[in-house]
Amino acid sequence: MPDNPSGKIKASIIGCTGYTGLELIRILLAHPQVEIAHLVSRSNSGEDIGDTVAPHLKGYGLTLTDLPAADVAKDSDVVFLALPHKTAQDIVADLYGTVKIIDLSADYRLDDAKTYEHYYKIPHNHPDLLKKSVYGAPEFHRSAIQNAALVANPGCFALLAQLMLYPFAGQIERSQIFAVTGSSGSGRAHSDGTHHPVRSHNMKSYNINLHRHIPEITRTAEIEAGQLNFIPTSGPFTRGIFMQGFIDLKKETTPNCAADLYKNEPFIRVTDNVALAHIAGSNFVDLSYQKGNGDTVLVQGALDNLVKGAAGCAVQNMNLMFGLKETDGLTTLAPLYP
Amino acid sequence: MPDNPSGKIKASIIGCTGYTGLELIRILLAHPQVEIAHLVSRSNSGEDIGDTVAPHLKGYGLTLTDLPAADVAKDSDVVFLALPHKTAQDIVADLYGTVKIIDLSADYRLDDAKTYEHYYKIPHNHPDLLKKSVYGAPEFHRSAIQNAALVANPGCFALLAQLMLYPFAGQIERSQIFAVTGSSGSGRAHSDGTHHPVRSHNMKSYNINLHRHIPEITRTAEIEAGQLNFIPTSGPFTRGIFMQGFIDLKKETTPNCAADLYKNEPFIRVTDNVALAHIAGSNFVDLSYQKGNGDTVLVQGALDNLVKGAAGCAVQNMNLMFGLKETDGLTTLAPLYP
Amino acid sequence: MPDNPSGKIKASIIGCTGYTGLELIRILLAHPQVEIAHLVSRSNSGEDIGDTVAPHLKGYGLTLTDLPAADVAKDSDVVFLALPHKTAQDIVADLYGTVKIIDLSADYRLDDAKTYEHYYKIPHNHPDLLKKSVYGAPEFHRSAIQNAALVANPGCFALLAQLMLYPFAGQIERSQIFAVTGSSGSGRAHSDGTHHPVRSHNMKSYNINLHRHIPEITRTAEIEAGQLNFIPTSGPFTRGIFMQGFIDLKKETTPNCAADLYKNEPFIRVTDNVALAHIAGSNFVDLSYQKGNGDTVLVQGALDNLVKGAAGCAVQNMNLMFGLKETDGLTTLAPLYP
Amino acid sequence: MPDNPSGKIKASIIGCTGYTGLELIRILLAHPQVEIAHLVSRSNSGEDIGDTVAPHLKGYGLTLTDLPAADVAKDSDVVFLALPHKTAQDIVADLYGTVKIIDLSADYRLDDAKTYEHYYKIPHNHPDLLKKSVYGAPEFHRSAIQNAALVANPGCFALLAQLMLYPFAGQIERSQIFAVTGSSGSGRAHSDGTHHPVRSHNMKSYNINLHRHIPEITRTAEIEAGQLNFIPTSGPFTRGIFMQGFIDLKKETTPNCAADLYKNEPFIRVTDNVALAHIAGSNFVDLSYQKGNGDTVLVQGALDNLVKGAAGCAVQNMNLMFGLKETDGLTTLAPLYP
Repeated sequence: MPDNPSGKIKASIIGCTGYTGLELIRILLAHPQVEIAHLVSRSNSGEDIGDTVAPHLKGYGLTLTDLPAADVAKDSDVVFLALPHKTAQDIVADLYGTVKIIDLSADYRLDDAKTYEHYYKIPHNHPDLLKKSVYGAPEFHRSAIQNAALVANPGCFALLAQLMLYPFAGQIERSQIFAVTGSSGSGRAHSDGTHHPVRSHNMKSYNINLHRHIPEITRTAEIEAGQLNFIPTSGPFTRGIFMQGFIDLKKETTPNCAADLYKNEPFIRVTDNVALAHIAGSNFVDLSYQKGNGDTVLVQGALDNLVKGAAGCAVQNMNLMFGLKETDGLTTLAPLYP
Repeated sequence: MPDNPSGKIKASIIGCTGYTGLELIRILLAHPQVEIAHLVSRSNSGEDIGDTVAPHLKGYGLTLTDLPAADVAKDSDVVFLALPHKTAQDIVADLYGTVKIIDLSADYRLDDAKTYEHYYKIPHNHPDLLKKSVYGAPEFHRSAIQNAALVANPGCFALLAQLMLYPFAGQIERSQIFAVTGSSGSGRAHSDGTHHPVRSHNMKSYNINLHRHIPEITRTAEIEAGQLNFIPTSGPFTRGIFMQGFIDLKKETTPNCAADLYKNEPFIRVTDNVALAHIAGSNFVDLSYQKGNGDTVLVQGALDNLVKGAAGCAVQNMNLMFGLKETDGLTTLAPLYP
Repeated sequence: MPDNPSGKIKASIIGCTGYTGLELIRILLAHPQVEIAHLVSRSNSGEDIGDTVAPHLKGYGLTLTDLPAADVAKDSDVVFLALPHKTAQDIVADLYGTVKIIDLSADYRLDDAKTYEHYYKIPHNHPDLLKKSVYGAPEFHRSAIQNAALVANPGCFALLAQLMLYPFAGQIERSQIFAVTGSSGSGRAHSDGTHHPVRSHNMKSYNINLHRHIPEITRTAEIEAGQLNFIPTSGPFTRGIFMQGFIDLKKETTPNCAADLYKNEPFIRVTDNVALAHIAGSNFVDLSYQKGNGDTVLVQGALDNLVKGAAGCAVQNMNLMFGLKETDGLTTLAPLYP
Repeated sequence: MPDNPSGKIKASIIGCTGYTGLELIRILLAHPQVEIAHLVSRSNSGEDIGDTVAPHLKGYGLTLTDLPAADVAKDSDVVFLALPHKTAQDIVADLYGTVKIIDLSADYRLDDAKTYEHYYKIPHNHPDLLKKSVYGAPEFHRSAIQNAALVANPGCFALLAQLMLYPFAGQIERSQIFAVTGSSGSGRAHSDGTHHPVRSHNMKSYNINLHRHIPEITRTAEIEAGQLNFIPTSGPFTRGIFMQGFIDLKKETTPNCAADLYKNEPFIRVTDNVALAHIAGSNFVDLSYQKGNGDTVLVQGALDNLVKGAAGCAVQNMNLMFGLKETDGLTTLAPLYP
């Protein structure tokens, strides 16, 4: 652990130039108890991030480095990995035990190497470490996160689905979920799906019942989604996920009241008025529950895929790991409206 | 019936300055067998529509008139009513029998005055005429439309839902539908829901299980939606409806093959690739069918709410009523892509 | 001045439900040295702002009040007025001298009642107070703002234009400015210009050479815009102003180097890469200067109309008025990207 | 020339899968005197275009072919080339004289090989043919187009700029033009500039005073732009170019009245109300002229970059080359509004 005369947490980011990494920087800049130690990028080492890959951050004096991960860890209290999946596997293993790690990739989210291999089409080099990582959904694993050496930050779809389903834990017969995501969820790499001329007025589903976040949804032991149909869909906006669930409960069960269940959760707002515009840029999750026709429960949820669906949740996890107030540096970032 | 030396159908529009009326003009301008007789508007009578309410139509020499409906009918082979509901009730009754009528409002879509009153919160002045109107879904009522004096053009949500469900007619246990609509569906009147600063990156549901198109969905005798949950949702785009259905079938039934059922339908495309970008500006309906987990059928559909969901379907109905080829003036308008 | 055991500045907002007022709340929530005293709204008094007019602020415990302005002032160190112009005139006059005032309306921006009357089509009731108000462009009037009792916060177009022109102060022969604004600049009231179906893919100019921000541009004595053509234009986005200037300088003058001139300004970034995406949600102004053909200087500028163009600049002014660091609570809000 | 019992023009497109080629298909499908002969694509030969690269065209029975250009020409009355520049050079040369050619690339727009080489960074293989090609701006070169064997279809920026400037031909001292383009102008290839997460709310200039359309603007002999500053800018919409010009005229000149000059032009609308929303999907060019302060003329213009800026203008040229009415198949495509 580094010297720390300022009393602030020294946080570093490995892979800071993707959208998730950039969002982490945005949030950490607003966190009163954090100072950024290293921003690691394979390219542009030694240059100001604002002069190269992130002109929006010009003026913050943030210099990129290609320091080896082990050296980054030495100067840091916590290292965030905002790398593509596959890439994080070995770096996490190398750093494990030397520094607190929050991995925003998918590499340590599943507890089972076979499931990982099935969905990600590559072997997992460190199946033992999978068992040691804590799945970073604060609402379900708060105490484990507090003591974790390695937190696997949840996938954006998966976290929202779990938060929607949790009030019915153990009672679900079937879950049918339609999820619309903004284009920032696809990251910084170009693709047909994120080409502006088409995306800007399109909706289109993809990977129906095949999406990699599906096995995460039921990772949390308490939740069983029942028979699940999960329809990821691209929407013509930048940030946010809007999710509609049609939930069938097992007979003779009494669901928990979501409003009660979540009443002490600082970022969960149970409301009758779920809308993307209410959560953009913030760590909030808005949820609504309504009885539908024919005993279906109609559930809606929204979060910002880059905040509560990625960087914001990671900072929430960091707060837990360091004994800070869970909302530190997060509730100060109110939604950007309009 | 007017003199008609050109051999063209004389078509008039009452209420031509809303989005639906303007879209009718766009389509009729491309129809080789139609000439526009009168464009009726309460305001700006005598002025060129391009100089006042519709600058995009400048140059077409289209003059607005406030001629009484009866006089309009005398000069016309067909009168389209593109008025708000309630407003069309009496005008239709006045014109009935004097000219072929295609009513794009909701006033003559339901066959039962009580249901109308329940959903529209006003009495229906002409319940007898409700029985005589033909519901203008060409795919279900083709021959009746051919002989109709009054066609009630379907609602945009309702038509798409019916087309999605029809292959399972009589076999549906439950239908759960999530429908996302573009902002043009709200018409030209301003509202919080269509205010650009919020709408441009928002998604938000409204009138869940209360939408006025719901009773239309099951109007067509062959279709029973079963227990229905219908979630209309505002999307951040201008044109189109994207609809996701989760359909449960009754046990021991065998659904029709949608591709076979629709193979002769000129505007229904059964595909595995439904996307708003593929249908914008055209009269096509794209549908996909896929078996989901747990015996659910996953259905997706898309149409342009102003074309197949309004003006295009109305022209398709006109073609039927006048013995033209059903595609005349319509397939020539290919989707605007991108 | 109220008791202040927390040592925090007690800030109130009169007119907190428009976009500018809501943005002020967002920024003040992130300001470590401010606590919100009163949020004044004519309607919904006693209710949580998150339950009524601003669902995105649910959870912050912010209650609306209709307390009279004088009582608000008693509990506050500073009162922000985020009211429409005309409405602020008398309230400012009533409060003047009892509390520090930052008026975000246009009512006290011009120093001359006749010009005000010409542009705003109503008389000014307090022409004397016009002389006492300090125009709140921190880059030009820093020391006056520090001592001001009343700061008139600049108009969004006007501030950006002044910042673009300032390096050529006294040397400008002619300024031709094309300015594209996002829809949030029109506020929360609906209009044809902010109706989503049209605005979402449109560009259209309005009030060419008549816009009310024009007289502000030359209010700052040092700046003369020369012969000015100013073309405000609506763009299909929510936040931001993108401004292009073609500047002709008087012969035999040597412009200041903008980069040097602004090098100590915390929110001005002179760059070769001006883009709306780099400043959204932040208090930054990005400016570029380039020599064009034919001795024209090509200037580009961008700011977020709700932040540096309104609420952010107001907080920057507050910081100056209270002797805080000018960047407090502002640089922590990095641009939201993407 | 092929047999032609239908009396229709047989039109083929080489390079039909880019946005320009697809738009040509859309327009030709609506043209009553044209039948599509061959759609040439290097890939997917033998397949229905609607099953592969253009799902929006499913149902039209359009099959792709990789037939050699010479064979395509044998079956065609006219061949459209919708290829990237450089690629069209040799194909045009090979086909020249065997079939009427309309080249939508930039390869034959400039009459001088050196200028071509300067802007496109490659030599031109057929400088002689450059002299024979006719620049396809119908408003300036109508009679030459009627007799042309090879028409070089104008660039979208260049055509709009020329149409804006033409009323001042020979009288311009200086032209300063700010042009905002939709993302479809960048074509189907992905780039940072067309990545949806950023483009959807961005404005950003590029290639200032370096854009390849600049030498085209003054190609038409009558037009001299004077000292020109040309600022191409990316806008957050799909279709259209919105252009603002600040024009200084030479002293003691009297500009033509644009409205008079263009009064017989079927696609030029002189108006006081230029807006992208009025021209989308159509072949119209909307222009406004207004006297500014300080003897500047303020000009605004708008066109759809894929229609009048590419495929629509190409069809207008085809109409001229075949002695059809210039508006055939084009005015029937009214703007898509909203």
